[in-house]
Amino acid sequence: MPYIKIELTKEGVTRQQKQALIKGVTDLMTNVLNKDPQLTHVVIQEVELDDWGFGGEQVSVLREQGITADKK
Amino acid sequence: MPYIKIELTKEGVTRQQKQALIKGVTDLMTNVLNKDPQLTHVVIQEVELDDWGFGGEQVSVLREQGITADKK
Amino acid sequence: MPYIKIELTKEGVTRQQKQALIKGVTDLMTNVLNKDPQLTHVVIQEVELDDWGFGGEQVSVLREQGITADKK
Amino acid sequence: MPYIKIELTKEGVTRQQKQALIKGVTDLMTNVLNKDPQLTHVVIQEVELDDWGFGGEQVSVLREQGITADKK
Amino acid sequence: MPYIKIELTKEGVTRQQKQALIKGVTDLMTNVLNKDPQLTHVVIQEVELDDWGFGGEQVSVLREQGITADKK
Amino acid sequence: MPYIKIELTKEGVTRQQKQALIKGVTDLMTNVLNKDPQLTHVVIQEVELDDWGFGGEQVSVLREQGITADKK
Repeated sequence: MPYIKIELTKEGVTRQQKQALIKGVTDLMTNVLNKDPQLTHVVIQEVELDDWGFGGEQVSVLREQGITADKK
Repeated sequence: MPYIKIELTKEGVTRQQKQALIKGVTDLMTNVLNKDPQLTHVVIQEVELDDWGFGGEQVSVLREQGITADKK
Repeated sequence: MPYIKIELTKEGVTRQQKQALIKGVTDLMTNVLNKDPQLTHVVIQEVELDDWGFGGEQVSVLREQGITADKK
Repeated sequence: MPYIKIELTKEGVTRQQKQALIKGVTDLMTNVLNKDPQLTHVVIQEVELDDWGFGGEQVSVLREQGITADKK
Repeated sequence: MPYIKIELTKEGVTRQQKQALIKGVTDLMTNVLNKDPQLTHVVIQEVELDDWGFGGEQVSVLREQGITADKK
Repeated sequence: MPYIKIELTKEGVTRQQKQALIKGVTDLMTNVLNKDPQLTHVVIQEVELDDWGFGGEQVSVLREQGITADKK
């Protein structure tokens, strides 16, 4: 407790970025809810672009059209 | 909103079939609940046959016995 | 196989709409992948508006601002 | 994309704490991965203490024994 | 590690049965994989009968027809 | 009904161990809740060590430090 699942499209997330996500989420649980990091589990799940649908379309197709998930 | 996870055994689902699943589920959310496709996310998760259990048995073993998940 | 989870904000989805979602998703698995309906499980999970975040904000707050998830 | 599920034991998490969790996780996705907040969904799932098991025991029983999930 | 989610229809599962499920799953992780119980989390999620679909139908309807999930 | 997801770190779980997990969990549902094995689905999800965080750290780093998930 707590358990956090992060689902992301598989687009080159680096090991350092994964470390930052894990540390950031764990710290957030401590800072907001005072949860013990030794009880906090985080799982990152990368999803192939063919397997994520948005707006009725595969993300792989959206990417072929130049549409990204980056902050505007 | 909404977010739909489709978990399937990994048995040769094609890119076109995945597109049909994503479009079909997204359209269903719109037709039944009037949800905006731009807010609808669909994730397909393919599971290895060794990793799916049914009736206490691995699906890989069931397939070796000729048992499929096809509509009768 | 397959197993489908539909996560929705808790905003008055009726029993009939749930039946339509379950039937629609199950039929989709059969039509696209020829899956046996007797092996297809669908779970609907309604989420309180305070518990769903989008764009860094709680959906309950977005609704207070008149922002809906309806198709434009 | 991304989609983040936060599962927590149901122990009085306030609306403000949920807002802080949603904002914190969404900001983390932007800061680490440059993800657009308008594509980032966060779902908080509170779990009854009888329904969360840790160390082979129900958390409700652990709490009766004075064992908490707080940071030491 | 590991994290186990048990999803069940909401049909009167007692506190003792939940304890048995949690203990049984945790022991299984230790016996089969030698996992430390202090690292094993189990979450039980009860689903309303209207919200679980099987064979294209709501389980609530199946129950009204006398169809149960009991072992034959 | 029921549907059980077992998430594990990807550390050489053998086919036989997966069979034992599937059989053990399915039997548990029958013994405790009298559930029909033909309605019980189990999915095992193995997670890369870089993708599982515990105590704010990646499990891959913990393993490099000689820290395991084995029962003490």
